[in-house]
Amino acid sequence: MLQQLRARIFDALDSIKLIDPHTHINAQAPASTTLADIMGYHYYTELAHSAGMPRERIEQPGLDPKEKVGRLVEYLGALENTIQSSWLIEMAQVFFGLDDDAITAANWEALYDRAAAAMKGPDWTAHVLERSKLEAVFLTNDFDDPLEGFDTSVYIPCLRTDDLVFHLSQPAVRARLENASRISVHDESSLNAAIAALFEHFTSRGARACAISLPPDFAPAKVGSRRAAAAVEEIWRSGPQADIQKQRDLSHFVFWTLAECCAQFKLPFDLMIGVNRGVYAEGVFQGRDLYDSRVSLIQYRELFNAFPQVKFPISMLASVTNQELVSYSWIFPNVLTHGHWWYSNTPTYIEHDAAARLEAVPRTKQIGYYSDMYKLEFALPKFAMYKRILAKILAERFVVDRGWSEERAVTLGHQVLRGNVDTVFFGGDNS
Amino acid sequence: MLQQLRARIFDALDSIKLIDPHTHINAQAPASTTLADIMGYHYYTELAHSAGMPRERIEQPGLDPKEKVGRLVEYLGALENTIQSSWLIEMAQVFFGLDDDAITAANWEALYDRAAAAMKGPDWTAHVLERSKLEAVFLTNDFDDPLEGFDTSVYIPCLRTDDLVFHLSQPAVRARLENASRISVHDESSLNAAIAALFEHFTSRGARACAISLPPDFAPAKVGSRRAAAAVEEIWRSGPQADIQKQRDLSHFVFWTLAECCAQFKLPFDLMIGVNRGVYAEGVFQGRDLYDSRVSLIQYRELFNAFPQVKFPISMLASVTNQELVSYSWIFPNVLTHGHWWYSNTPTYIEHDAAARLEAVPRTKQIGYYSDMYKLEFALPKFAMYKRILAKILAERFVVDRGWSEERAVTLGHQVLRGNVDTVFFGGDNS
Amino acid sequence: MLQQLRARIFDALDSIKLIDPHTHINAQAPASTTLADIMGYHYYTELAHSAGMPRERIEQPGLDPKEKVGRLVEYLGALENTIQSSWLIEMAQVFFGLDDDAITAANWEALYDRAAAAMKGPDWTAHVLERSKLEAVFLTNDFDDPLEGFDTSVYIPCLRTDDLVFHLSQPAVRARLENASRISVHDESSLNAAIAALFEHFTSRGARACAISLPPDFAPAKVGSRRAAAAVEEIWRSGPQADIQKQRDLSHFVFWTLAECCAQFKLPFDLMIGVNRGVYAEGVFQGRDLYDSRVSLIQYRELFNAFPQVKFPISMLASVTNQELVSYSWIFPNVLTHGHWWYSNTPTYIEHDAAARLEAVPRTKQIGYYSDMYKLEFALPKFAMYKRILAKILAERFVVDRGWSEERAVTLGHQVLRGNVDTVFFGGDNS
Repeated sequence: MLQQLRARIFDALDSIKLIDPHTHINAQAPASTTLADIMGYHYYTELAHSAGMPRERIEQPGLDPKEKVGRLVEYLGALENTIQSSWLIEMAQVFFGLDDDAITAANWEALYDRAAAAMKGPDWTAHVLERSKLEAVFLTNDFDDPLEGFDTSVYIPCLRTDDLVFHLSQPAVRARLENASRISVHDESSLNAAIAALFEHFTSRGARACAISLPPDFAPAKVGSRRAAAAVEEIWRSGPQADIQKQRDLSHFVFWTLAECCAQFKLPFDLMIGVNRGVYAEGVFQGRDLYDSRVSLIQYRELFNAFPQVKFPISMLASVTNQELVSYSWIFPNVLTHGHWWYSNTPTYIEHDAAARLEAVPRTKQIGYYSDMYKLEFALPKFAMYKRILAKILAERFVVDRGWSEERAVTLGHQVLRGNVDTVFFGGDNS
Repeated sequence: MLQQLRARIFDALDSIKLIDPHTHINAQAPASTTLADIMGYHYYTELAHSAGMPRERIEQPGLDPKEKVGRLVEYLGALENTIQSSWLIEMAQVFFGLDDDAITAANWEALYDRAAAAMKGPDWTAHVLERSKLEAVFLTNDFDDPLEGFDTSVYIPCLRTDDLVFHLSQPAVRARLENASRISVHDESSLNAAIAALFEHFTSRGARACAISLPPDFAPAKVGSRRAAAAVEEIWRSGPQADIQKQRDLSHFVFWTLAECCAQFKLPFDLMIGVNRGVYAEGVFQGRDLYDSRVSLIQYRELFNAFPQVKFPISMLASVTNQELVSYSWIFPNVLTHGHWWYSNTPTYIEHDAAARLEAVPRTKQIGYYSDMYKLEFALPKFAMYKRILAKILAERFVVDRGWSEERAVTLGHQVLRGNVDTVFFGGDNS
Repeated sequence: MLQQLRARIFDALDSIKLIDPHTHINAQAPASTTLADIMGYHYYTELAHSAGMPRERIEQPGLDPKEKVGRLVEYLGALENTIQSSWLIEMAQVFFGLDDDAITAANWEALYDRAAAAMKGPDWTAHVLERSKLEAVFLTNDFDDPLEGFDTSVYIPCLRTDDLVFHLSQPAVRARLENASRISVHDESSLNAAIAALFEHFTSRGARACAISLPPDFAPAKVGSRRAAAAVEEIWRSGPQADIQKQRDLSHFVFWTLAECCAQFKLPFDLMIGVNRGVYAEGVFQGRDLYDSRVSLIQYRELFNAFPQVKFPISMLASVTNQELVSYSWIFPNVLTHGHWWYSNTPTYIEHDAAARLEAVPRTKQIGYYSDMYKLEFALPKFAMYKRILAKILAERFVVDRGWSEERAVTLGHQVLRGNVDTVFFGGDNS
């Protein structure tokens, strides 16, 4: 009976048209062209590498896509327990008619060919969007992205700012900033102006968020203009060799400036907190980052107090910090919960974390899920996973434990899946 | 079938007469006089503020109680998913005959009036106690509370000591201490004597616990008398401007002295660990505190070893530190688990934390729950929430998973709900 | 229906022959001779002590085993809720025919006598192994254990190295090292050679792992040979009074040398991370250790990168660090998940932690469980607990949530219970 209840709630949630509030989609090539685009996703290459595949086999220069898939298939058996594997199987079943419950030596070639044929169709992207009930997806754009050549009502720009905050000591990054902003950056105030110019450009092209990922030891702080000026001067002179404290000052100054621009340009500032980059130096592409779960939102205290007018949708990398996110969202009007990120995007952690949010954060302040995908085909299985878990929580904790009607539970699910995306990023009404 | 089992166990637990071992009840005005007393609870004002209500609207000087409730009602829809909202609805249904499952623009005025009428009844307090099966509640008394004018067998004094440990550098606090103790405090030994005098007074008036809430970075340490004397001297001279290390020494000295007095006067010392005060400066009244979950009971190692004769019922603010509490309670005879505090007082965390305690801490060392309430009406829904979760754990993890009889499971539930309150705080027998 | 599914999966898992990959069995006396050997396990003495039994009553010199059991029985009622108590009852029921669901004043003496009689049987050890479906168990051998007088195909040597890393400043430990290695240790290179000699000896006697337990603040680092030489010189001169930084250098040097030897001798290096020794000074034997859960695998970053050829089966003491273990095992080929250790070896934590592993770590990289036992009788109830939880996870999260067949779920269970022990420690095939 509980199973049926979960299934009915899932079906209701599954009919909702979605906007995916965080992806890495390339708007010029949103869907896959071969199965290698799907199986080349870092989740599969890194898990296959972890299970024993040498990095060279998968990152061999000039490797043929079909050969690449064939090599990865050898390791799929070792990963079939993972939820990431279930995404792959679900995609293969829904989009490419896989009948089996595994991709094996026996069936992968036919699957590859069917997929390639399907992806060649002129309407493949439209089909995937339609089948996945996706109305639009947020992008992750480099700060110097021209944002041209695509429909910004479907592919919504988002200003990604990691490079500005953490790599501005590199001359190449500064050059990109000057080119993109058309401002010669040489001191604190021209830096400020250049950053504002980026916001001007992005918002003029329909950007709906500014975003950044942050290491666990980052603690935003306002840097006085004299210290900022000294940092700019030193770093413009010495680049990556500049004094480490000066580099830190510059990071803090740029970050704070971003928050000021978010206030000025009325953009939500997505904070993705907790990642250490390059921990496993020999890992596969995009499979080198890990984390230290010892991080606290207390590090963001000054920021949250200083910018009451900026909405901060927040993703924490580690599930053990989700309770802090729940509590800070419950207290701070400008702090919102945002999806289940990366290493916390697996069912056990989603269930624990989403349940805690649903019972203690105002319903208007929870953005349930984003796919974080690189190719459009992933939205379907990833959102399906989340919707199944959401249906389970709503069934068990709201309908059974709290006596809610199914309808009321589905309405809550609708709000966290879609409604709040509209209100938080588009200023829609969500009453 | 599992549902019925849970319901039967809940019914059995729900028949138990309770003593609430930690509340903020004002013994002179224990119950509410209007719905504003209930809806003015910081859980509702802070969640409404988080959902968008300006602080000024709810903290306007001279605001009429009915108007205040009306303003809060506007935001209840945004909070209806929260467990805190469910407490409100349950109170309204049980005490004031609400028929709906929400308090809305359409029904709140009638509810307000019915509640006000009921609360005017001469037996309202007695009725709430009776209906909630409450025999007694622990108070949270300022150290200079005269403890007069109420029945200390129903309203049990508890010596709250935050001011002594953390604010003794303020002249006003020192003046209160001198007044309350009738001792002129000017050095380490007179400070010691003054604190002992407070214990004398409190225990003579039936106090059953000493309590304190502590920030995450606090680590008790014994301070030698010379250092203590120097700290007293400096702080008596310079007040809040005194050297920070001296202030820390004084905090440590006072805390240690409290533990010594707990030993001498045979009072349990409730430690509530992990809160940072005033994190959100612009928050509503009592809605400004948050935390850093990076705290460990290893910080209390010296204390637990030094005072084997003192019982330490401990509440951790963050669920991620509950496992440490389980382990320390399993090893240290003087460490006990105590309720589910504040940000951890929501079902997902209670369930995870209580289950872990029930399977690894001696049954005699677990105080299941306290309400932390400011008004008596809250005991009913808060304890009901806990009892539902406790029934779920007992049904699933003891009856189903471990083959226990229902009767045996209920006996365990009784002990953590009530039996251990008797033994820990009143020295009762609990065999 | 779910109950039946869980039961069927459990039955299938319960038929598997096991190798227990981590125990403290004494190969010369693997099984118990009286019930005191079982009830003297630190889990019972420390929980009884925590519940009020004075340490002296249980550690009285010359205490008769039967009297010891009688004294412990007085406290069993206070512990009957614990999972550790359930292990005891299950052993008593399975091995000694206990009919009741508790060991009480009324039945313990008869039980004691029955147990003593059974244990006297010439085949008791064989019977316990057979009844528990144990083919072999890993030992925990002191580095100077001669490894003689037992069948190393059943009792598999494991080189335990805590003393080498943390206590080499003690002259007695150095003397043991010189005796065992037959090498006069006086500088960095002779120390290196002595350690290699231990590996030579252990692997020649069939050792299959090197192991160590580590405090939460330990962070492996490569120490240059000049610094290592200076540390050896200073510590050989000053012993435990040596400069603390020098002692730290020596610890790091020895640890790194162990990892090098693991690479050279192809031994997995079991890391058991997070314990603080001697926190409760007055605790019972083996009941004094606790932990600080603020630890991160980021501390092991340099190690994991430096030794790609060494397998690191890792146990984390605190459940809150399990997600890091999951993530690091998902990324690093040489990091594996290993059992549920000590304070995390209780059902609520096992369930949360094992579920997270099963859905995100390659199936080939998870060693599900070890008993950590001191006496053979414990394998049965401890593994039974784990298998019940594993069956629950497989039933709920794989068969129900993901639509797996029962057979496929059982195959996964088999692999984590047994298959991976073969491949990780014995180089077996696990396809």
